[in-house]
Amino acid sequence: MATPPQTRSPELRKDPVTNRWVIFSPARAKRPSDFKSKSPENPSNNSSSSCPFCIGNEHQCAPEIFRVPPDPNWKLRVIENLYPALSRKLEHSNAQSGDSSSDLGGWGRVVPGFGFHDVVIETPVHSVQLSDLEPSEIGDVLIAYKRRIEQIKQFDSIKYIQVFKNHGASAGASMSHSHSQIIALPIVPPNVSARLDGMKEFLNQTGKCSLCEVQSKDLLINETSHFISIAPFAASFPFEIWITPRYHSSHFDELDKEKAVDLGRLLKLILKKMSLQLNNPPFNFMIHDSPVQVTDSELPYSHWFLQIIPQLTGVGGFELGSGCYINPVFPDDAAKILRELNVP
Amino acid sequence: MATPPQTRSPELRKDPVTNRWVIFSPARAKRPSDFKSKSPENPSNNSSSSCPFCIGNEHQCAPEIFRVPPDPNWKLRVIENLYPALSRKLEHSNAQSGDSSSDLGGWGRVVPGFGFHDVVIETPVHSVQLSDLEPSEIGDVLIAYKRRIEQIKQFDSIKYIQVFKNHGASAGASMSHSHSQIIALPIVPPNVSARLDGMKEFLNQTGKCSLCEVQSKDLLINETSHFISIAPFAASFPFEIWITPRYHSSHFDELDKEKAVDLGRLLKLILKKMSLQLNNPPFNFMIHDSPVQVTDSELPYSHWFLQIIPQLTGVGGFELGSGCYINPVFPDDAAKILRELNVP
Ligand SMILES: Nc1ncnc2c1ncn2[C@@H]1O[C@H](COP(=O)(O)OP(=O)(O)O[C@H]2O[C@H](CO)[C@@H](O)[C@H](O)[C@H]2O)[C@@H](O)[C@H]1O
Ligand SMILES: Nc1ncnc2c1ncn2[C@@H]1O[C@H](COP(=O)(O)OP(=O)(O)O[C@H]2O[C@H](CO)[C@@H](O)[C@H](O)[C@H]2O)[C@@H](O)[C@H]1O
Repeated sequence: MATPPQTRSPELRKDPVTNRWVIFSPARAKRPSDFKSKSPENPSNNSSSSCPFCIGNEHQCAPEIFRVPPDPNWKLRVIENLYPALSRKLEHSNAQSGDSSSDLGGWGRVVPGFGFHDVVIETPVHSVQLSDLEPSEIGDVLIAYKRRIEQIKQFDSIKYIQVFKNHGASAGASMSHSHSQIIALPIVPPNVSARLDGMKEFLNQTGKCSLCEVQSKDLLINETSHFISIAPFAASFPFEIWITPRYHSSHFDELDKEKAVDLGRLLKLILKKMSLQLNNPPFNFMIHDSPVQVTDSELPYSHWFLQIIPQLTGVGGFELGSGCYINPVFPDDAAKILRELNVP
Repeated sequence: MATPPQTRSPELRKDPVTNRWVIFSPARAKRPSDFKSKSPENPSNNSSSSCPFCIGNEHQCAPEIFRVPPDPNWKLRVIENLYPALSRKLEHSNAQSGDSSSDLGGWGRVVPGFGFHDVVIETPVHSVQLSDLEPSEIGDVLIAYKRRIEQIKQFDSIKYIQVFKNHGASAGASMSHSHSQIIALPIVPPNVSARLDGMKEFLNQTGKCSLCEVQSKDLLINETSHFISIAPFAASFPFEIWITPRYHSSHFDELDKEKAVDLGRLLKLILKKMSLQLNNPPFNFMIHDSPVQVTDSELPYSHWFLQIIPQLTGVGGFELGSGCYINPVFPDDAAKILRELNVP
């Protein structure tokens, strides 16, 4: 494991969790510790005076779902997205079951775009980032995700709920005020099906849950009482990080207040380390949850995790075509760097 | 089909070929005809005097595989990539069969990074783009892909060959001189397996090949004797375009000289239209081929196509997490605009 990256041969790895192949190719790398982001951190189209997400500008936003605490001096708000990808009004329209569209000759499947698309405003203050918050405040954001998931789950047509965060323009963010989003879908999306297939296969072969077994010395970054952070075995991106509960848990909304604060502590540390090591890069994080409805037989291999991807490299035609990523940094090298980094 | 985009409700579509769901969400769109690229067309790090791909600078390149015609006045060259993602020297190393890596506790699968990574220099002249070439010259580029595929296919360990092109910096290109790439892999990548599963299911349900059936009036852009171009039913990206043979053909290298010129003519027209309509956007194209080895039972549903993706929008955490894309432009609207466009 101590081999420096430039002398290692290329290697393909398949992750049982994502069920995807990744090419590790040090020949395409600069040295991992030289890997600094060159992207401007944030879009410049928002100053705090004109930002609808700032406290005092609530009237510029789409309707509120809830705020915490429930008074004018809020610390976080969950609101509807003003330009929603899906419509909360389409639940009872026809073709609900995924029938073919007649206009297009029945070639593919069509489902009406029923769903929810919310924004979680993580702080009232424009200049504050998620990693600036206290662990307990990050815990409050995580508990807001949980509360909103519990509300949305009541709709039978909702099959999957995707929580995600875009930070910085090249990670897709169009708003610089710290926020995350929740999209609830009437289908189970492809990555989720592929992941469950992979985790099921691992259980069939080993009798164990792939994510309960994930702890590997070489890939460990940091851990807390209830959570572990690692560089995943077949990371698609350089310095990709996963945080996963050490206890077996299929659904994110099983999180309680104490565990939320513990996760907040680890998430804060990891975001600080990433920012320090990689020059405050744009990033995304995604909660990889289980579908809303799971059967008893699916529970033993369903285990949620949070994935963090710093945006350091672009993708091209190879990745778009094959679905296979080229990662110049081996995860054990990335883990070592992040594990040994001291946060002041 | 005449409904203007802004009045259409969001809709999810699943494509039998890609086997993936896409969200069509006009609420997130500008009007389709306003959809112009704002990205600079090309990276500026290459001027023709210092470009290794220019005629006269062959000595600055990794070794040549072949050139056409085979003399100093070449019109195209196929060369090795100087920073290959895979190594052509690893064919007989161990763990070839995909055994677990012992260092990582046998958690996932590891395969040595054997493979080929070539660059196709499409023209000797720095300022010439692929769409500037004559149909027969584009045909020569396509025949060069075919010839190189036929060579690489001889290696038993190669399971899939991905041909792709990056044009413009935000489509991933690091070199501005017109070129494409060929990566040959020791595995079948995930998108290909998912596509074959989808196409097989379509055959099982309808008795027909999904791509032989693809022609739909509303989605048609242009056609030639042997090829058809369409906006695909569940396009992941606005103005995504597919070109597919009208005859059933599993593998790209079945292309003969006459069909290559015919495809060159259609590809030129489509690239010109895209450039005119979308303000010369960065783009990728990918040839979606069948795995090198296919069984007789797989042939009836295996049908190659070429996918063109203009880079107009970024992606964010939702797409990274779910694998589901949000496309603000319905494909029949994109097809109509491109079909009716006159190229001077
Ligand atoms: N003198 C020389 N001789 C031979 N070859 C030379 C050379 N100088 C440069 N090259 C090679 O030429 C290729 C040019 O390719 P592109 O410009 O299409 O994008 P690149 O592969 O860099 O990365 C894009 O495409 C890949 C694959 O999709 C993505 O992984 C990546 O993120 C994206 O930026 C490079 O691969 C480079 O290694
Ligand atoms: N006044 C207001 N009230 C309520 N909501 C408001 C609002 N003003 C803006 N919004 C919403 O706030 C959200 C901010 O989200 P982000 O900045 O994370 O990225 P966005 O969703 O724009 O797109 C990124 O993420 C998506 C999903 O991953 C990708 O499809 C896309 O390409 C990428 O740029 C937007 O969705 C916007 O619609």
